Amino acid sequence: MNHYPKKVYLNGEIVDANLAKIAVFDRGFLFGDGIYEVMVQINGRFFYSDAHLKRLQFCLDKININFDVETIPPIIDALLVASDLVNEDCLLYIQITRGIAPRTHSYPKNINPTVMMYAVPKKLPAINLINASVVTSNDYRWDKCDIKMTSLLGNVMANEFAVQQNCFETLFVRNGVITEASHCNVFFIKEGVVNTHPANEFILNGITRQIVIDLCNQLKIKVVEKGVVFSDIENFDEAFLTGTSTQIASIKQLNNHTFYQGNKIGAVTKKLQQAYLELK
Amino acid sequence: MNHYPKKVYLNGEIVDANLAKIAVFDRGFLFGDGIYEVMVQINGRFFYSDAHLKRLQFCLDKININFDVETIPPIIDALLVASDLVNEDCLLYIQITRGIAPRTHSYPKNINPTVMMYAVPKKLPAINLINASVVTSNDYRWDKCDIKMTSLLGNVMANEFAVQQNCFETLFVRNGVITEASHCNVFFIKEGVVNTHPANEFILNGITRQIVIDLCNQLKIKVVEKGVVFSDIENFDEAFLTGTSTQIASIKQLNNHTFYQGNKIGAVTKKLQQAYLELK
Repeated sequence: MNHYPKKVYLNGEIVDANLAKIAVFDRGFLFGDGIYEVMVQINGRFFYSDAHLKRLQFCLDKININFDVETIPPIIDALLVASDLVNEDCLLYIQITRGIAPRTHSYPKNINPTVMMYAVPKKLPAINLINASVVTSNDYRWDKCDIKMTSLLGNVMANEFAVQQNCFETLFVRNGVITEASHCNVFFIKEGVVNTHPANEFILNGITRQIVIDLCNQLKIKVVEKGVVFSDIENFDEAFLTGTSTQIASIKQLNNHTFYQGNKIGAVTKKLQQAYLELK
Repeated sequence: MNHYPKKVYLNGEIVDANLAKIAVFDRGFLFGDGIYEVMVQINGRFFYSDAHLKRLQFCLDKININFDVETIPPIIDALLVASDLVNEDCLLYIQITRGIAPRTHSYPKNINPTVMMYAVPKKLPAINLINASVVTSNDYRWDKCDIKMTSLLGNVMANEFAVQQNCFETLFVRNGVITEASHCNVFFIKEGVVNTHPANEFILNGITRQIVIDLCNQLKIKVVEKGVVFSDIENFDEAFLTGTSTQIASIKQLNNHTFYQGNKIGAVTKKLQQAYLELK
């Protein structure tokens, strides 16, 4: 069960969450015209915060929202103090929209971005021990999935599709190839080789995805950045999801295909989970 | 230049526009998880309001937002009174989002939709006399364009692309075929036959689009609902855009191709514009 935060940072002020309100003319509300980022504080520091902020800047630049992410760290500090979360394990959500203007599709001139952030207590497990069941869907989303935008209805619908079937995630299949999941990246392992979709416009290049690839390189596990063909799935030995909150989560079942019996977790997945834990 | 409305209806209240605020936890803000509709009042009545409300219900049902559009007409009446727009030509905007909940992708249970509406004065010309220049873009949007959702960043970017080039619209090309524009439908005419993309998941089935097809049938103008191949564009004699505010707008120039010289408007386009005017 998710909860509201105690406090919200909104355009220069930190207010009680129930008082954090934006104009209905905010383009985040009218058009989904915004970018977001999620990161977690673990053991008193934000995990790979530089990578998260760099991606945020990349995405803001891509859609011409004029905002400098270097202004964010002092805001986080103040927000954590107000939220009683200094050094506490928590999840930080950042959303930056183009700002407020009378409704018209094209980018208005001379408006200020809306900046919203909040932190909620979140204690991630040392290792994510779930062994997930996942389903698949045609990847009906747009062709710019590398932009972490708030126009998320496609991902929302896919996530709901999984929940309706008591599953953890929906994997998207585009032109016969598995791209990613509704809010995770996905990896498949065959004969010790780790396969994942390349970081192109069809996936969000997750920070955890990048960390896992680095870990594979350090551990001399071969990584192939190539999309796995959906019809070939039963020839794989292991599969896992990655994400900021998900960390590394084993996949046990994909539609009707069971990767392995019982609640064991595959050897390569386990090795990477252990290596990931050691980064904390 | 667009303006803010005087009043906004928001969840049962009509308030001054600058006081119309929603929670930052509204899923319309966090996820673009909402549906919208735009209609115009002309000569004291909302033009094809039944068709607009029917489409709104269709889209809400498609994404499982539990709201009955039959509750809308009395709200419109009250809003027009408060906005000093009774019987005045105006544009009505309606947005319904899934509601407010702590952030998680899947649909929360037992929340109330957020309902927002406003009306602004808008005097449409009897006939839209612009002769538009348009550009084209790869159709990078999702595969469910029949849902009139507020996750609109793809359309926003395409509209901005046109504006950057001093053009009126961007036409999308999917697999070599022209689908629609960023906020209009598009029609092409060859030897008196009107061609437009079929109303499938690749376009928003505009109310004006449907009216124009009906008018063609009444006027014994042949209509073919088949996407026009982009590379074949210079073999067409006329082209026009349709939309609630755009009405029927001739296209003079598409990228480097000029449909006709001077400011004349093609014969079939003109005939349809006249027939459309007579519906008002």
